[in-house]
Amino acid sequence: MNLLFDFYQSLLTQKQSKYMSLYYLDDFSLGEIAEEFDISRQAVYDNIKRTEAMLEEYESKLKLLSKFEKRSELVAQMKQAIESNATPEEIMSMLDSLEKLD
Amino acid sequence: MNLLFDFYQSLLTQKQSKYMSLYYLDDFSLGEIAEEFDISRQAVYDNIKRTEAMLEEYESKLKLLSKFEKRSELVAQMKQAIESNATPEEIMSMLDSLEKLD
Repeated sequence: MNLLFDFYQSLLTQKQSKYMSLYYLDDFSLGEIAEEFDISRQAVYDNIKRTEAMLEEYESKLKLLSKFEKRSELVAQMKQAIESNATPEEIMSMLDSLEKLD
Repeated sequence: MNLLFDFYQSLLTQKQSKYMSLYYLDDFSLGEIAEEFDISRQAVYDNIKRTEAMLEEYESKLKLLSKFEKRSELVAQMKQAIESNATPEEIMSMLDSLEKLD
């Protein structure tokens, strides 16, 4: 959820973003967030659950996290290949795969 | 606009997506789309203008197109570097830059 929040934070409202940040990044409890904003614990819970569902839906549509992970893995493989003295052709072919991910 | 549509199409409604696709990909005129869906030319125009604004706003928030272009440029540079017999260290440093784009 932290990673999804990272990728799609810009699409959330300020309030959604604030609650998520306190809950997931600053490790506040629902009760602490409720107190901070003078609302019910249930309201905080509902907001966070709705936001989580939104983030999952954005990921199902845009797949930013999944694509990021695939790119990262390929870049790590390329670095390893270079360290193991891969041929230019091998590196070139991995670059082709990287381009195809987009 | 074609590229923005490509990146954010999954976030549009079916109707928005259909109008945009006919207008930008299939080169239909506003009048032809209006006729096809039996609505006014003005309604088609308004819908497409609103969708364009949404796509611009998504790009301003997520920057998928801009990041894609930067990655593509860097991959092209790496391919050129490999063809010019760049050292493994040079390729490695370009891979580091690629990772930092994400």
